[in-house]
Formats: sequence, structure tokens, C-alpha cells
Amino acid sequence: MRFPLSPAPWLRRYDRRDLPSDLIAGITVAVMLVPQGMAYALLAGMPPVAGLYASTVPLVAYALVGSSRSLAVGPVAIMSLLTLAGVGALAEPGSAEFIGLAGLLALMVGVLQLALGLLRGGVIVAFLSHAVVSGFTSAAAIVIGLSQLTHLLGVSLEAQAPLAIAFEALRRLGDAHPATLAVGLGAVALLLAGTRLPKRFPTPLVVVVLATTLVALLGLGDHGVRTVGVVPAGLPIPTLPDAPLSAVLALLPTALAIAFVGFMESIAVARSLSAKDGERIDADRELVGLGLANLAAGMLAAFPVTGGFSRSAVNHRAGARSGLATIVTALLVAITLLVLTPLFRHLPQAALAALVIVAVAGLVDANTPRHLWRVRRSDALTLAVTFLATLTIGVEQGILSGVGFSLAVFVWRSAFPHVAVMGRLDEQGVWRNVARYPDVRLAEGLVVLRPDASLYFANATYLRDVVERTLAERDDARGLVLDLSAVNDVDAVGLDGLDALMRELDQRGVEVHLAGMKGPVRDVAARAGWRERHAERAFHVGLDQAVAAAAAACSERAGRALGVTTG
Amino acid sequence: MRFPLSPAPWLRRYDRRDLPSDLIAGITVAVMLVPQGMAYALLAGMPPVAGLYASTVPLVAYALVGSSRSLAVGPVAIMSLLTLAGVGALAEPGSAEFIGLAGLLALMVGVLQLALGLLRGGVIVAFLSHAVVSGFTSAAAIVIGLSQLTHLLGVSLEAQAPLAIAFEALRRLGDAHPATLAVGLGAVALLLAGTRLPKRFPTPLVVVVLATTLVALLGLGDHGVRTVGVVPAGLPIPTLPDAPLSAVLALLPTALAIAFVGFMESIAVARSLSAKDGERIDADRELVGLGLANLAAGMLAAFPVTGGFSRSAVNHRAGARSGLATIVTALLVAITLLVLTPLFRHLPQAALAALVIVAVAGLVDANTPRHLWRVRRSDALTLAVTFLATLTIGVEQGILSGVGFSLAVFVWRSAFPHVAVMGRLDEQGVWRNVARYPDVRLAEGLVVLRPDASLYFANATYLRDVVERTLAERDDARGLVLDLSAVNDVDAVGLDGLDALMRELDQRGVEVHLAGMKGPVRDVAARAGWRERHAERAFHVGLDQAVAAAAAACSERAGRALGVTTG
Repeated sequence: MRFPLSPAPWLRRYDRRDLPSDLIAGITVAVMLVPQGMAYALLAGMPPVAGLYASTVPLVAYALVGSSRSLAVGPVAIMSLLTLAGVGALAEPGSAEFIGLAGLLALMVGVLQLALGLLRGGVIVAFLSHAVVSGFTSAAAIVIGLSQLTHLLGVSLEAQAPLAIAFEALRRLGDAHPATLAVGLGAVALLLAGTRLPKRFPTPLVVVVLATTLVALLGLGDHGVRTVGVVPAGLPIPTLPDAPLSAVLALLPTALAIAFVGFMESIAVARSLSAKDGERIDADRELVGLGLANLAAGMLAAFPVTGGFSRSAVNHRAGARSGLATIVTALLVAITLLVLTPLFRHLPQAALAALVIVAVAGLVDANTPRHLWRVRRSDALTLAVTFLATLTIGVEQGILSGVGFSLAVFVWRSAFPHVAVMGRLDEQGVWRNVARYPDVRLAEGLVVLRPDASLYFANATYLRDVVERTLAERDDARGLVLDLSAVNDVDAVGLDGLDALMRELDQRGVEVHLAGMKGPVRDVAARAGWRERHAERAFHVGLDQAVAAAAAACSERAGRALGVTTG
Repeated sequence: MRFPLSPAPWLRRYDRRDLPSDLIAGITVAVMLVPQGMAYALLAGMPPVAGLYASTVPLVAYALVGSSRSLAVGPVAIMSLLTLAGVGALAEPGSAEFIGLAGLLALMVGVLQLALGLLRGGVIVAFLSHAVVSGFTSAAAIVIGLSQLTHLLGVSLEAQAPLAIAFEALRRLGDAHPATLAVGLGAVALLLAGTRLPKRFPTPLVVVVLATTLVALLGLGDHGVRTVGVVPAGLPIPTLPDAPLSAVLALLPTALAIAFVGFMESIAVARSLSAKDGERIDADRELVGLGLANLAAGMLAAFPVTGGFSRSAVNHRAGARSGLATIVTALLVAITLLVLTPLFRHLPQAALAALVIVAVAGLVDANTPRHLWRVRRSDALTLAVTFLATLTIGVEQGILSGVGFSLAVFVWRSAFPHVAVMGRLDEQGVWRNVARYPDVRLAEGLVVLRPDASLYFANATYLRDVVERTLAERDDARGLVLDLSAVNDVDAVGLDGLDALMRELDQRGVEVHLAGMKGPVRDVAARAGWRERHAERAFHVGLDQAVAAAAAACSERAGRALGVTTG
């Protein structure tokens, strides 16, 4: 593998024949990105122009390093929501202080992602279960949608919690500003209608142009329809945001959440697109690319960015063959900033809110919970916990709860594993689980068990309980055979637990033999001195052998006992 | 299983022949408990008499319900340390407020343990690895030993952190109060000498009597040797401590830690003693017994108790046959409170400190780290993390860090499992790991892999990476066979990951076949619709079959490709 800070593959050998499709894709995405960037900036509590800043140099930074050909980086709804939640706790949205902190946040996200990528820490993404991502995304989409109601109604809502916002919006429907509501609902209707058109059709641009023209012609801005207003023309001057230690510390949890979630969302999108092309996505290189993009966003007084699903899909479908498409997009946004900003004066915020609402409506996913519920209830439960925590407690806490819960489910299940009672199918000469093969023959005077899990500290006690319970149920049992063929791994504490169990049962006159120990487990047992202590008892290759040896040892014991009694 | 709040087994049928040995054991433990109880009370920041209160009704409460015949409940060094750490953060040790809060703490511990036991939550103890317990105990013993230096030297030390205490004690060795130091060191020397006598010899009592006599005869109390002083005679009057919500909330983390650690220590002791007798210890019943004991301790203005190792071992060796031995102990302590308290007036605190130091010195365990290091380094690392965190950050944080670290090690290992490349031993007709059997034959044009772990969300990506890497290394590979015989369990996200991998490889012209799927995994796959989607490809019984099918499918594909090209 190459060091992840080297140039992207497409830079090393660019095929000129890709130029036309890269150009078309770049233009297509730019047309979508200009209105979306402004909308997501508003969602993040930032001035609309910050969304355009975030759509310039950060895109180029990713394109030069990232490993995906068609990932479209830029402002993304969920990142904006996390930004608003994190920075909003420290400063008033839209204030100069807020803007400074959002830039600092982007810088921190960039540093974290860059560092993680250079340390080859991309594997960390494995710990974010798809069940968590699905629950979080659906809940975040609802939170985002509700947050736009204030713009759609033209009414300032007091409530903070998502459900409270919904109730207040409903209660104050009568206070809605009629013209604002008309513009907003009209935009929603057009955007929904546009979903039936081919994906490359620039519905958002058309809607925004229509809404702006309408507002400008009818002078609705003077009648209370809130517009974007004067947008400063020109490119931003790169600068490092102020970074007092207290602000850095206060923003750290949010920065960690955004770095993590942004990476996760981006790599999921990149992988799903690359799967179609057989292209390889390198997680560490992706982290470095996103890290550089966020560093750039931080220096442009913008806010955190990542690779989003909808624009990436459009980019891919429009034929993007390399990062050049993204660079074309960035150049077009820069040109927009230089010459087109006067056009945004009459752009109504309600139209941007409509854009956000329609975009996130597609993120609410009812299929995954149904699928998970059918296949494995615990995964559906993880999704539900994440969804509810995100909706009721908060967005960062929602992810954290989901990750914690999903790992807890795994640990809990590993701590109480399936233990099969085994019997012999004499015709085939194999041993099978009694629960699945009721016709098997149980070994006479012996309990044969197969723990179906790696043995470690947390299930050592459970295994002992199962053994004790099973022995208690079989009065005739004078011996125990454990089939360890399903034990993939063992830690020292788990092994010691088994050792102690063997010793105790031995003292109580129960013969214990082990069979089918795998290589890695055998290695650990050897280091713990089992070859000397348990010798052949612990290392039978197959169950037939182990059962024969245990039966022989039991009769010998019985003989000895008899000898003592009669002698 | 019986409901855990029913009377203890020995109450249902007491064998009168056990009476003499129960009496002797009860007396033996009482003789040990009176000085120890006062010493551990001082360690907890409580007046010495509280240690005697804690040794009366709480013992009876446990004896009437608990499942162990010989567990000796009462004040224990580590519980006292946790009490001092938790309550000391809220009030000045020894103050009336401190005493009230310690009683409240015991009450809370009792409620938590009782609730957990009635809810049959005793399994929770499984998550405390022996590596964590060992590291914590060693570190706690050091912390406790160092905390007694102030009493031994007769010098008040300012430092709080264990290492700082050690340095300060060393630096101020010259300021030591000579008579105090002489009494303390003399007591330590006698106690150490006593460890060579039979365990039932009441060395602590002898030392305490000697020290008290010496101090009384020489009038050392008037020369600056600090003594226990006037101890109020009589039994405590049961009362409920004040429980303002703020205090309850502030004490909750400590109460959880004590409930957890106390239960863990107690059940470990009970199990190690019961193993010798073949007696069954019921974790839930133990929780209920300890819960009642702590409720009683709370109502007597005492502090949290549990089953300790040293007195239980003495109780067992002295012949305790039932809880009656413990009730005898409690009665003797009560009599002591009624008539013997005047004797404690001249008991020097330095002698009690010596008692604590010698007791905890035996808890520092150097064998377990060495054993774990040899058998499995990660377990030794868990021990080291717990030890260092307990010593440097704090006792509660130490346990928490240990539990977190040990679970993280398990999760981390499960996320990056061993994946074996498989080849065939043609003579035996079996498939084996290439790394362990270099003579195996690789299947022509096929990669055969065996993931040695349950598949779940956190290792789905890793499995994909290993598959991709292995396929990239074998240019001739047109197919992949996964041996799932070591996969004990699968969650929906892990299964979906495998599904997606199969679909992608299929699109890239790589045949994927699966073999050896176990029953529980097959059930999950069936619920996910694999029978319809993958049919026979996913459900081969053995590797021979799967490899043959994959090879046939590969040639067919090649034939089709050839047909298309030439057709």
C-alpha cells in the first residue's frame, strides 16, 4: 500500500478521453451544489455564502488525494446538523462568534481525520454498525426536516426538541406567513415532481431560479418573505481561525463525532459507487482526503464537509471518471462567487428550506428496520435505540448510544454462548447437536458438550454453569467430554477458568476429556503448561477418541473405587 | 432454582452434629474480627466502633439467606478504601456528616445488590475479568498500605496520591513519633512472626492485647501515642440515615462500584471455598444475602461490608459447617460491644494500622501478572492498565478502566480475526490451514479461506479486506470458497456484508461458494432469504463439495465467455 498522502491515482495517469465526461459531470454537480451548499449552510446556522466557500478549495483538496473517482465532497445535511448542535451550544447561530467556532470545528475535524488517516486508523469505521448508521440517519433526517419548518412557515419557533418543534409548528400553523408558506410549499411540490424526471435534470436550480424570479418580480421581499439578501462577492481569504484552548476543548466531542460520522458516511458512499466499477477504496487515503478538505474548509471560515450520497450518485451517473470532475465543480462554484452573487439577493430562504426538506425526506429508511427485524431482532433493537436516542436526547448522544449498544449486544451474546449437547449418529460415524438431530445416541455415562464460542473471561463462568447444570441432570454421568472444535480463540482468564473446572470435577470424581482443540487454542494451552498438567486428556483430536478415553478412565476409576471398598 | 429470598439451605435442615464445630469456628472468627473490624473502620474514615457495629446484625442477615456455609461477611479492607475514596470526596473523614453519608452509602449498596439479586442479575459478575480483579487488588493493597503510614509514623501526611504519600513518608521519617513508631513496628513484627503459626492462632488478638497493655502500663497515651479512646458501650439503635437526593446522586457511582466489587470479591471467595466441598454457590442468592447485610449496615450507622478472603478461610479451616458459625461470631461481637469496650481505651491506632498493613501485604500478587504474560500478553496488559489506573487515577476509575479495557481487547480481537488460507491434504482427504500444514495442495484457480470467528458488524469489513487482498495475490483465482465451519454466530449486518461481497465478486466474474455453515448461522441466512437468492452456492456441507462446485462453475463461466467472444 502507498503512503496515504501521495497524489490520487488519477493524477498519476490521466486519460484524456475521460475529459468530456468529467466536464459534464463537474457542471452537473455544480448546478446542484450551489443551491444545496447555501441551504446546508443555513441549516448549519451559517450565512449562505459559507456553503459556497465550503464548495471551493475543500473539493480540490479531496480530489488531489482521495481514492474515489466519483465521490462528491462538500456540505452535507447531517454534518450541518451536527455543526449546529455542537457550535450552537456555545454561540448564537449566525453570529460572528458562531462563524469563527464553526471554522475552528472544521479545522479540528480536518486535523483528526488527517491524523487518523496517516496513522492508518481507518479500520475504526468497522465499529459503526450499519444498524447504527441507519437508525441515526433516519432520526437525523427527521430532526433536520423539522428544523426547516420555521423557514417554511415564516414563523420563529421557540421549541428546541424535535417533537416539541413539531407540536409548536402544528399549533402555530395559523400564524404562518402566507406568501412564505406559498413559496415554500410551491418549491416542495416542484421538487417532488422533479424526482420523476431523469436524475441529471437540475430541478433544484430550476426551482431556485423560479422562486427567486417570483420574489423579485412581485417584490415579496418587502412583504415579509425572508430572502438570502446581500451576499458578499468574491473568494474568501484563507486565514486560521482563533483557537483558544477552552473553545478547542468544548468543541472536541463534536469534532470527534463529525470526524467519525463524516468519514463513515463518505466511505459508505464511496464503497457503494466503487463496487460497481471494481475500483478499490483505501480507507486511510479517504481519511487523508477528507482531512485536507476540512482543513481547507476551516481556513475559509466555512464548516465541516464530507462526501455526500445524493451529489455523488449524480456525479457517478453523469459520468465522472476522475477527481477532475470535482475540480470542475469547484471552479464553477468559485466563478459563481465572483460574478453571480447579486442574483441571490431575492432568493427566498423558504425555497432553500424546501430543498433541504425534500433532500432529507429520502434519507428516512423504513426498509432496513424491517429487514433487520426479520433477520436478527437484536440488530433491529440497536437501530431502534440509536433512532430514539438521536431523536430524544441529541444527535451526538444518539451515535454514541448506538455504538455503545451495538458493542454491548455483541459482548452480551458472546458472554452467554450456545452450548450444544452432542450425540453420535452411528451410521455416519459423526457427532451432532441433540437439539437438531433427535435420533443421535448419547454416550453412556458421559456428557458431551460443544461450546459454540471463543472462550474468554466473560463466558468462563457461564460455561461452568452449563456444565454443572447438565451434569446435575444426568445422574449416570461419571465423565464429561468437551468438544472444543468451535472454539476459535481463548484468553488466559478463559483458559484458567476451564482449568479450574477440570480440576474441581476431577476432585469430585468426574473424568474430563477435551477434543478438537484448534491450533491457536492449543498454542495458548501449551504456554499455560497444559501439556505437562493435562497431557493426553486435553488434546484428543476427535470426539470418538475422547469419548473412548473418558469411558475407559471412568471404568478404571470405578474399578479402583471398588478395589478400595472391598480391599 | 429457588427464589433467592428464601431461607438459607442450612436453616431448613440443621444437623445438630455440626454444632460443636460451628461454635468453635464462630469464636475463632470473632477473635479475629473484633480488632480487624476496628482497623478497617479507621481505614474507611469511620470511628472504630462502627467496625464493630458492621460486625453484628449484617452478619446475621447474610447467614440467614446466603448460600455459602463458610463465607465470613463483615468489614473488608478494599470496601473500606472505596468508602473512604467515595465519601471522602463529600465530607471530612471522621466527621458526623461523613458517618451519615457512609451509612447512606451502605444502604444504597444494599438496595442495589438486593435489586440485582432479585432480578437474577448475578451474571453481571462475568464481566469482571480475573486480570482486572488481580490488578485492582494489588494496586488497592498498595494504596491501603500507604494510607496507614500516617498512623504508623504518628505524623499527619499532607499528600493524597499514593506515590506522593510514599515520598512524603520517606522524607518525614525523621519527624516520626518514636513511641508510636515503636508500637507500630513492634506490632508489624509480631504479626509477621504470627504468620508462621497455625492459621487458627489468634495473632491479631494477642498483638492488640499486648499493645493495649503496653500503652496502658507505660501511660503512652499521655505521651502522644494516639489510641482508640473512649468507645461508647452498647448496641447501636437501628435508624434510617438521611438521604437527600443530592447525596444519593453524588454517592451513586461509588455505590455501584462497591456493590459490584464487593459482590465480585465475595463470590470469588465463596466459590473457592465451596469448590473444596462440592457445594453449589448461587450468585443471585449471594447478592440477596450481601444486599440484606448492607441494608443492616446502613441502618446501624456503619459502612459497606462483604465476604472477605482471610476471615472466610479461617472460618472454613476452623470447621464452619453452616451460617450458624457466623451468627455465633455476631453474638460475640455484640457481647464485646456491651461489656468490653472500656478495654479499647488504650488500644493504640498504630497497632490497628499494623494489622491492616500486614493483612493487605498478602494481597499484592506478582504471580498472576507473570502467568498472564506467559500465556496471553493482552490479559497481562489488562492487568497492567487496571493496576496503573488504580494507583494513579483512583480506585473507582481503576476498576472502570480495567473493565472497559478488557472488553475493548475482546471486541478488538473479534474485529480482526484470524482467517486461515486452506489447502487439501490429499492422503487424509481433509482441508487444513496452509500456515500450519505447508504440504497441503492449494485448489487450482480457487482461493479457499476459513474465517475463525463469529461474523458481526465490526469484522465484516475486515473479512472483505482479507478476501480482496488474497484474491489480488493469486492472479489465477477465478473463484472463492469460504469455509464457514468456524463461524458460530452471525448478526444481520455481518451477514449483509457477506451478501454484498458475494454480489460484488459475482459481478466481477469471481465465483463465490460457501461451505460448512452451522445450524444457527443457516437459520439467520434463511431468514434473510439466502435460500432463494444464493440457493446451493451458499449451503455446501463440506469443502470438497464446495470446491468441486466452484471449479465447475468457473469452467462454465469461462466456456460462456469463450462462447460470447467466438460466437
